[in-house]
Amino acid sequence: MTVELISVGTEILLGNIVNTNAAYLSEKCAELGLSLYYETSVGDNEGRLKSILTTALSRSDIIILTGGLGPTADDLTKEVTAKTLGLELVLDTHTKERIGEYFNKIVSHGIPDSNWKQAEVIEGAIIIDNTNGTAPGLIVETQYGKRVILLPGPPNEMIPMFEQDIFPYLNRLRPHVFYSAMVKICGIGESKVEEGIKDLMDRQENPTIAPYAKTGEVHLRVTASADTLEEGMNLVKPVVEELKERFKDNIYTTDEKETLEENVVKLLKQNNLTLATAESCTGGLLTGKIVNVAGASSVLNSGFITYSNESKRQFLDVSEGTLKEYGAVSEKTAGEMAMGAARATNSNVGIAITGLAGPDGGTIDKPVGLVYIGCFLNDKITVKEYHFRGNRQKIREYSVVNALDLLRRSIINNSNF
Amino acid sequence: MTVELISVGTEILLGNIVNTNAAYLSEKCAELGLSLYYETSVGDNEGRLKSILTTALSRSDIIILTGGLGPTADDLTKEVTAKTLGLELVLDTHTKERIGEYFNKIVSHGIPDSNWKQAEVIEGAIIIDNTNGTAPGLIVETQYGKRVILLPGPPNEMIPMFEQDIFPYLNRLRPHVFYSAMVKICGIGESKVEEGIKDLMDRQENPTIAPYAKTGEVHLRVTASADTLEEGMNLVKPVVEELKERFKDNIYTTDEKETLEENVVKLLKQNNLTLATAESCTGGLLTGKIVNVAGASSVLNSGFITYSNESKRQFLDVSEGTLKEYGAVSEKTAGEMAMGAARATNSNVGIAITGLAGPDGGTIDKPVGLVYIGCFLNDKITVKEYHFRGNRQKIREYSVVNALDLLRRSIINNSNF
Repeated sequence: MTVELISVGTEILLGNIVNTNAAYLSEKCAELGLSLYYETSVGDNEGRLKSILTTALSRSDIIILTGGLGPTADDLTKEVTAKTLGLELVLDTHTKERIGEYFNKIVSHGIPDSNWKQAEVIEGAIIIDNTNGTAPGLIVETQYGKRVILLPGPPNEMIPMFEQDIFPYLNRLRPHVFYSAMVKICGIGESKVEEGIKDLMDRQENPTIAPYAKTGEVHLRVTASADTLEEGMNLVKPVVEELKERFKDNIYTTDEKETLEENVVKLLKQNNLTLATAESCTGGLLTGKIVNVAGASSVLNSGFITYSNESKRQFLDVSEGTLKEYGAVSEKTAGEMAMGAARATNSNVGIAITGLAGPDGGTIDKPVGLVYIGCFLNDKITVKEYHFRGNRQKIREYSVVNALDLLRRSIINNSNF
Repeated sequence: MTVELISVGTEILLGNIVNTNAAYLSEKCAELGLSLYYETSVGDNEGRLKSILTTALSRSDIIILTGGLGPTADDLTKEVTAKTLGLELVLDTHTKERIGEYFNKIVSHGIPDSNWKQAEVIEGAIIIDNTNGTAPGLIVETQYGKRVILLPGPPNEMIPMFEQDIFPYLNRLRPHVFYSAMVKICGIGESKVEEGIKDLMDRQENPTIAPYAKTGEVHLRVTASADTLEEGMNLVKPVVEELKERFKDNIYTTDEKETLEENVVKLLKQNNLTLATAESCTGGLLTGKIVNVAGASSVLNSGFITYSNESKRQFLDVSEGTLKEYGAVSEKTAGEMAMGAARATNSNVGIAITGLAGPDGGTIDKPVGLVYIGCFLNDKITVKEYHFRGNRQKIREYSVVNALDLLRRSIINNSNF
């Protein structure tokens, strides 16, 4: 089955927003094993939307439209879809009630008249409740066997709706069961991972292995097509085991939803460890990532952003001799920063980053991209030297991922002894 | 003139990357006054790319393709474009030399054979040198008056090429001169800004005013179409003056390229002020933004991420009484944090954020989204209370923008006395 995405909204064509919905839905369609060949963005314009939708209906089995379901006169995705399919709009009393309830919860004054427009649905459509807004999702199954799915544009409405209702709906349509697992790798490069799975990718038709490169990480999705879920699991399992054998502790999780920072917070909790951070060139990015994990406060008490030598001395107790002899960007300073952060806050673990993110400040001895990451744990200091490529932002992002990875490995090694 | 974007790459359709190129090019086209009606993403597939390009040629004057100019066999944007237009590929010796030079600079071992493919160009095309990679850009002016522009996919190659060569090229094509100015506003909501310019937007045909909402900011682009640049400037100037009159110090810059954090760093430098930060719920995000400004180290010595009450006491000298009586999320704590950060680091200015980013921890008195931001400057403490909506990430982003805005206003007010 082929699927096609249409993003509706003049704000996309004006460059006002980045179309993250398309990236999200693309990945989900890949996960579902659906073939996606075209993605189009079009403005809130009846003629052009109709022409795009007509083309899509002629070449794809499932068309997912996002956006243009709002209450204003500009929003016309529902109206144009109905017209293109030769269907009418009808009032849905269930949706009308939900809209009333929604507004009563969040506003004390009345409901804008225009919002009642959102209670109108395409006749015969399957109505998907919107738990985070007022525009319901709609699934229209046409008499020609095509399916048109209308979803709201705001990601915080669209994504929960997709996860809860649309994904299972699409999953049921498929002739086979698809079962997939995720293997998340960090600490080794993309090309090395691809080299390590080349034979598997060449050999295997079912299950397939697809690599997704993220900054500093590689995610491998293993997907099997089968007649039953159990058969799918049985096909996927040995491949995941093989990957575990090959990549060992470079794999930080096989949990689809777990991020690297969540993994680190979990490991800290499991081992009853508390953490302090000390950042120089990353200036708070690492701590910001950790704090973004709900519940991080139970393991992270404090962090230091020590840009100047003075602050490295004052708050982290880095010795004057170290800074003079080795400089702020050095193995020795990174180690002392990590230890100093842990000791100043009475934490078990300290993690420190010092490096040159550029664009200025590089020398032949210490070029831009040189970063030292230190980890202090159980009175043991580990420091690693990195040479990252890219602009200031990229170097800082790589530093953060690798600091999380060093934390992870240090905690695992420590708990093994 | 109408323009259309085609993003080529299977990685987009698999959801492997977010298509930020499309957002960037859309905004630039709006700036150029070009009408953009369609954006399409298509995989590295000859048949489908050809069909999309043919459709685009039938309905738009200028077609910009990004991606698929790489050295591998998968990359076929150039080949398919040539074929669709009935043109040949020819070797360009200038590009061949540049590729040789590029590789000699970054690798000591030989040049992969496949890279020489990138020295082939469409016959008759204008060749745009790539200063950050090996694939040149190409502009093909067809005999039917259409223009097809091929650009490399990686943003760090595409954006400099667009800014330096493609933007001026497109600008010259237009029958009129377009002159535009940017007015960047923060500290007041999007709806309030739109209300404040409604009459101007309704009244004015030339120049036009287009609002762009960013998190916590609104950017207004004023664009005039004219016969000469001078005439354009004369049309834009009074509108910008009118906007300055209306929004006063809510405008932080009229410099197209200046970000809010750059503006704050500039203000600090101009006033010979040094800054210390203290973050609770934002956990380093604010400092990370400031540190991302090149040269920030001259104004920022240190930052504190004080999650626990203990660390607020220990490093920022927040009094036990304050924490007990008012709690960590309070006006009083925010003020003491800001002062404590400044004093501990001997800085002139302290900025502090404490709040509830959720999802848990909210109460009726102190709901999720409640954030206090404190600024200490010249022995004066200013604290503001905010109620932000959205998820954890959004609340933290709003907090950061508003902290930067409070810093900005405090410095300006201080220097006025």
